[in-house]
Amino acid sequence: MAEMDWKHTIRDLKGVVLDMCGVLYDSGEGDGVAIDGSIEAVKRLKASDLQLRFCTNETQATREKFVAKLGRLGFDICVDEVFSPAPAAVTILKERGLRPHLLVHDDVVPEFDAVEKTDPNCVIIGDAADNFSYQNLNKAFQVLIGLEKPVLFSLGRGRYYKEMDGLKLDVGVYMKALEYACDVEAEVVGKPSPVFFQSVLADMGIQPSQALMIGDDLVNDVGGAQSCGMRGLLVKTGKYRSAFPRANALSICERMKSSRGRA
Amino acid sequence: MAEMDWKHTIRDLKGVVLDMCGVLYDSGEGDGVAIDGSIEAVKRLKASDLQLRFCTNETQATREKFVAKLGRLGFDICVDEVFSPAPAAVTILKERGLRPHLLVHDDVVPEFDAVEKTDPNCVIIGDAADNFSYQNLNKAFQVLIGLEKPVLFSLGRGRYYKEMDGLKLDVGVYMKALEYACDVEAEVVGKPSPVFFQSVLADMGIQPSQALMIGDDLVNDVGGAQSCGMRGLLVKTGKYRSAFPRANALSICERMKSSRGRA
Repeated sequence: MAEMDWKHTIRDLKGVVLDMCGVLYDSGEGDGVAIDGSIEAVKRLKASDLQLRFCTNETQATREKFVAKLGRLGFDICVDEVFSPAPAAVTILKERGLRPHLLVHDDVVPEFDAVEKTDPNCVIIGDAADNFSYQNLNKAFQVLIGLEKPVLFSLGRGRYYKEMDGLKLDVGVYMKALEYACDVEAEVVGKPSPVFFQSVLADMGIQPSQALMIGDDLVNDVGGAQSCGMRGLLVKTGKYRSAFPRANALSICERMKSSRGRA
Repeated sequence: MAEMDWKHTIRDLKGVVLDMCGVLYDSGEGDGVAIDGSIEAVKRLKASDLQLRFCTNETQATREKFVAKLGRLGFDICVDEVFSPAPAAVTILKERGLRPHLLVHDDVVPEFDAVEKTDPNCVIIGDAADNFSYQNLNKAFQVLIGLEKPVLFSLGRGRYYKEMDGLKLDVGVYMKALEYACDVEAEVVGKPSPVFFQSVLADMGIQPSQALMIGDDLVNDVGGAQSCGMRGLLVKTGKYRSAFPRANALSICERMKSSRGRA
């Protein structure tokens, strides 16, 4: 972002939306690790006059478990501040009277407890990780190809994410696989879907131009937010891969503070 | 195919290329089952003045094991008559000095015995079936994404095939997954690659217009052959899905005989 754009953005800012994995922490064995400065960055944003929300495509746990994990890492975050795809998908299913076949991580299944799942008429895939076996993907395919009009929901469209022991395939890869198998286009729930960002803006009660999305994914975080009229900023932590120096959440937070001070 | 086109095709015909799975047999537990009339169709073609070859994207076994299985089902077929992607891939690897990371079915690994595989600089995927675990696909992804210029070979690009207990995902689905993950385009070895069909034509020593490809896949068999100038014919067995009556290999064989008789 050019210097003038940055100053303009910061002056009008009323809310910040933070991606979580790769911005606040790196995932991996156990709870993963907080990224240097990110706990302090969240503290400073909460102490500012800006509204703060968290927007994640995390679908390996319920929001409650996910927030508890972040608490153990040192973050002060409430469940209501976190927007994730599974609850958004449940809303869509209820609105449209759909009964899903789920191919998701075991730990996110409880998000769908209140949804009828017998005789499925759609398929939902999330970041199922080890549950993405050949057998399970084939079962999801068979449900889809057996429907008169296959309906596929994907909780995100990410290509990969970073864990402590390396890059890992994300749900978008399996979305492409099923799209090709059944010659359908998936409906993406979560980032970069505009509907998803709009629900966050509505919750904050602010206009898109008053909100800044900070993430480590150029397409799903920055691109998705920008296509809604929000500002987007790429951190150089998480999955960001480049020879350039790293910009983390705290360095951006400090830069915002100094820019607002000058404004 | 219109009646006049059919007569013209049959009159000039010097060779027939048969797809195998879905045309000769349905795969499944054990050896699978021969499709009604297909053993007789192969016999009649062999007894005719037409050359006959078999062209399969089968990559769940070496050609030797595959031909032995077909023998047990009642087919009289030699290894030299069968064209499959793995030997074609080995030729390419040797020509280009490439060392593959393999994500293939255990039973096809011996086809690559003579190929150097340490410090891989490309990835080959075949119809790995249960070997398409999350862990194995992630490993292939990590090799690819770690290469300065990722090179991905896919032994076919099929979406699915039919086994006795239902439709099963084919290698093309996982090709699309890795293409998306790494933002690369795979090189397809096998049908519908023109190079693959041309190697069969060269072996028969005939022109494309003198050859008829018979298969159950509109894209990989019929479309692939037609894009090489061959004639293509779709059987209504195997993965063919429609409310129309079934045309099998034998009914086509009988129709060819009567057309040639009239020609």
